Amino acid sequence: GVGDRAAQIIHGALMALVILSVGAVILESDPDNAARYGALFRAVEYVAVAAFSVEYALRIWSAPDHALYAAMRPTQARIAFVSSVSAIVDLIAIAPFYLSVLVAADLRILLFLRLARFFKLARYSPGIRSIFAVLEAERKALAASGIVLFGVVLFMATAMHIAEHDAQPEAFRSIPAAMWWAIQTIATVGYGDVVPHTPAGRIIAAISMVMGFVMLGLPVGIVATAFAEEIHRREFVVTWS
Amino acid sequence: GVGDRAAQIIHGALMALVILSVGAVILESDPDNAARYGALFRAVEYVAVAAFSVEYALRIWSAPDHALYAAMRPTQARIAFVSSVSAIVDLIAIAPFYLSVLVAADLRILLFLRLARFFKLARYSPGIRSIFAVLEAERKALAASGIVLFGVVLFMATAMHIAEHDAQPEAFRSIPAAMWWAIQTIATVGYGDVVPHTPAGRIIAAISMVMGFVMLGLPVGIVATAFAEEIHRREFVVTWS
Amino acid sequence: GVGDRAAQIIHGALMALVILSVGAVILESDPDNAARYGALFRAVEYVAVAAFSVEYALRIWSAPDHALYAAMRPTQARIAFVSSVSAIVDLIAIAPFYLSVLVAADLRILLFLRLARFFKLARYSPGIRSIFAVLEAERKALAASGIVLFGVVLFMATAMHIAEHDAQPEAFRSIPAAMWWAIQTIATVGYGDVVPHTPAGRIIAAISMVMGFVMLGLPVGIVATAFAEEIHRREFVVTWS
Amino acid sequence: GVGDRAAQIIHGALMALVILSVGAVILESDPDNAARYGALFRAVEYVAVAAFSVEYALRIWSAPDHALYAAMRPTQARIAFVSSVSAIVDLIAIAPFYLSVLVAADLRILLFLRLARFFKLARYSPGIRSIFAVLEAERKALAASGIVLFGVVLFMATAMHIAEHDAQPEAFRSIPAAMWWAIQTIATVGYGDVVPHTPAGRIIAAISMVMGFVMLGLPVGIVATAFAEEIHRREFVVTWS
Repeated sequence: GVGDRAAQIIHGALMALVILSVGAVILESDPDNAARYGALFRAVEYVAVAAFSVEYALRIWSAPDHALYAAMRPTQARIAFVSSVSAIVDLIAIAPFYLSVLVAADLRILLFLRLARFFKLARYSPGIRSIFAVLEAERKALAASGIVLFGVVLFMATAMHIAEHDAQPEAFRSIPAAMWWAIQTIATVGYGDVVPHTPAGRIIAAISMVMGFVMLGLPVGIVATAFAEEIHRREFVVTWS
Repeated sequence: GVGDRAAQIIHGALMALVILSVGAVILESDPDNAARYGALFRAVEYVAVAAFSVEYALRIWSAPDHALYAAMRPTQARIAFVSSVSAIVDLIAIAPFYLSVLVAADLRILLFLRLARFFKLARYSPGIRSIFAVLEAERKALAASGIVLFGVVLFMATAMHIAEHDAQPEAFRSIPAAMWWAIQTIATVGYGDVVPHTPAGRIIAAISMVMGFVMLGLPVGIVATAFAEEIHRREFVVTWS
Repeated sequence: GVGDRAAQIIHGALMALVILSVGAVILESDPDNAARYGALFRAVEYVAVAAFSVEYALRIWSAPDHALYAAMRPTQARIAFVSSVSAIVDLIAIAPFYLSVLVAADLRILLFLRLARFFKLARYSPGIRSIFAVLEAERKALAASGIVLFGVVLFMATAMHIAEHDAQPEAFRSIPAAMWWAIQTIATVGYGDVVPHTPAGRIIAAISMVMGFVMLGLPVGIVATAFAEEIHRREFVVTWS
Repeated sequence: GVGDRAAQIIHGALMALVILSVGAVILESDPDNAARYGALFRAVEYVAVAAFSVEYALRIWSAPDHALYAAMRPTQARIAFVSSVSAIVDLIAIAPFYLSVLVAADLRILLFLRLARFFKLARYSPGIRSIFAVLEAERKALAASGIVLFGVVLFMATAMHIAEHDAQPEAFRSIPAAMWWAIQTIATVGYGDVVPHTPAGRIIAAISMVMGFVMLGLPVGIVATAFAEEIHRREFVVTWS
């Protein structure tokens, strides 16, 4: 109907405004851009905060009409809505602006809070919500993999610290220093700013790379399996409803 | 029969001509080669365009005989064929030649159009068509992963911009500059042209690498699962037909 | 009950002590930290060894009450417990301290033994135990992949040694030297300290990278499949019990 | 029985000899080692070739007793055996030695042929045979992925050649030169010897990295799925036999 059409247009406009205002924050971080286009960035910010504030107010206002809170009294429904993740993201999208007017806040934290409005996109995309659902559901398995990965990094770093300490006393001076080498090797990033020079160090590096191959199977296995199931479940729902 | 044999030989010759003419475009891009073997490259191009033009004309001519367009009138069938992806690829394979004769076109766009004839190979290979089918079918899930990946790149770049800005004012001068570091770290490429120097920056880098491990699970999970199903479906068809 | 609560608190305190004492070993490896906070690190070590010693003694003492050894006589149960992996990890967590008091042991081996107490964490986390169970179960398939990987590294290194030997006599002087290039290329680490310069060398490198893509499928396939099954089995148990 | 025990010991000795002689070839490639331990390497080679020759002769001799060739006449069985892959590997393991005695062969090809005896290990390990079986079974899907990967490398290289040609006329002087950058980026190796400097080049690089993430899903999906099925099939056989 006409209402659906209007809702679609408003959704589209809000998504465009999210992208526009995140783009403005990104570009404004360059001092040259900030000096040259400062007025434009401020204008985008004012429009975005105004629109997001109206959206937030309207969503609080209409919370009692929402199917999720139908059984509650109006005030109860509004409190329940305000404490939902979706509403908190909406609040964070506008809060930094008002905060910076009221108090002299740390600019760096403001930067993060302003970029957090990127997460508003998740509200409009079932695909993005699926990805977050998968990461949320598998957080324990991912954390366990993370601890095992930390253990592998720790042991390979210790071995390398012992093997390369004499050849490169600065790069491998301590276990934390060697861990910088170990994580970039095991994650197969390999910047190349720290590289073993001795034969023993190179053998330890080769073992670390093979460990990285095996370690990679853990998160890929967890995320890939869970995501494939999530996709199947959605298809199942679509097929039978 | 004899006709099948002849069709196979013509198919093989056309595939060889695709490979030969793409190879000529690649080699010709080197100024030394262009100067030395220019006549040879032009000869390959003339032969290829002539053969592909005849092929294109014959495919339009015989479109009404094609099973897909059997129910249509000849003109309708030819229009339907000309608007198919396969026919558009065929047209792009020859169009740049005629364009460059008629008008003074941008040489760089011509280069891309001439290389597009590489896609003609897909017509002859069911395996390549399967891969495109998988990517096409999963384009929404891949796009959602791409947006999440962009979000992770954006947040890690912002954190790094704040952490390393004072130590390396040039490499991490803005969020876009830091994003160059972030994407090559999270995609585990790690050129090493931009590397954090401070302890805080290295911890942010280590977190980014672990995020890259997890992020890698999304496209691998999507593509691997869909491709495994595509292979199974094909095998199923083979088993029952 | 009250006993459960107390057990939980003691478990939590022991885990915190594991993390604290591993952290102390890591930080102490930096000579600056060792000089400045030496007393603090020693204090953490004394407290940790004392607590882990009491824990070890009590676990030996109460071994006959353990469900696993219920059918055995007390002495038998204690001997069975002491030879279990879990008890050996507990012993390694305290042994280096007593060893270093009794004999002048190699400091580097002591470093490894002290870090081995990191594995005590596995006792408290079913997720970590699952990961070790998967790696243990698939050790034969992983070993076979490792041998094939070694073969690929060996052949690509030999090809590169032949191709680049004249251009870079030092970096590719022998097959072992070229293997250092090959493993970091096939594992997609790519430090960039050794890079081919000749066209032939770059073609061999490109083939090696594609081999690395394919090789990566082996450990990922083994670990991911086994881990997905492990997760399913656990869920199955949870559903029916 | 005693025969089984003896067969096991001989198998073990032959495997050890394969490892020893491959190790000798690797180490001998270093001119320093060749000069110092030349006599030792020659001794290992003589023993290995002698043992492998006797093994090859005995396997030809006993071919008619082999279950596979039971239905054939002795000469037929021996010819069938000699043309099997396993026997050809055995022949390649000894041929270079006799060749180098008879004719003045190219030393570099001899090096490859001598290392080919590494494949003798596959005969003794069902795990390695499984891996080769998977790669053999999926060779068409892997080839199709390889062609698509080549297409992606070609198009990203062409885009980069156009974007970076003016900024770095040497590194991106032609499409083949840019392909060296493209393959190491898409395969996520990232040596860092060739890196884009312009904003346009960095955006093309970022797109290439994301393409690499997606491309990685193809071989991993093919190999991982096929390998998981291979493992299941083996388990199925074990369960029912």
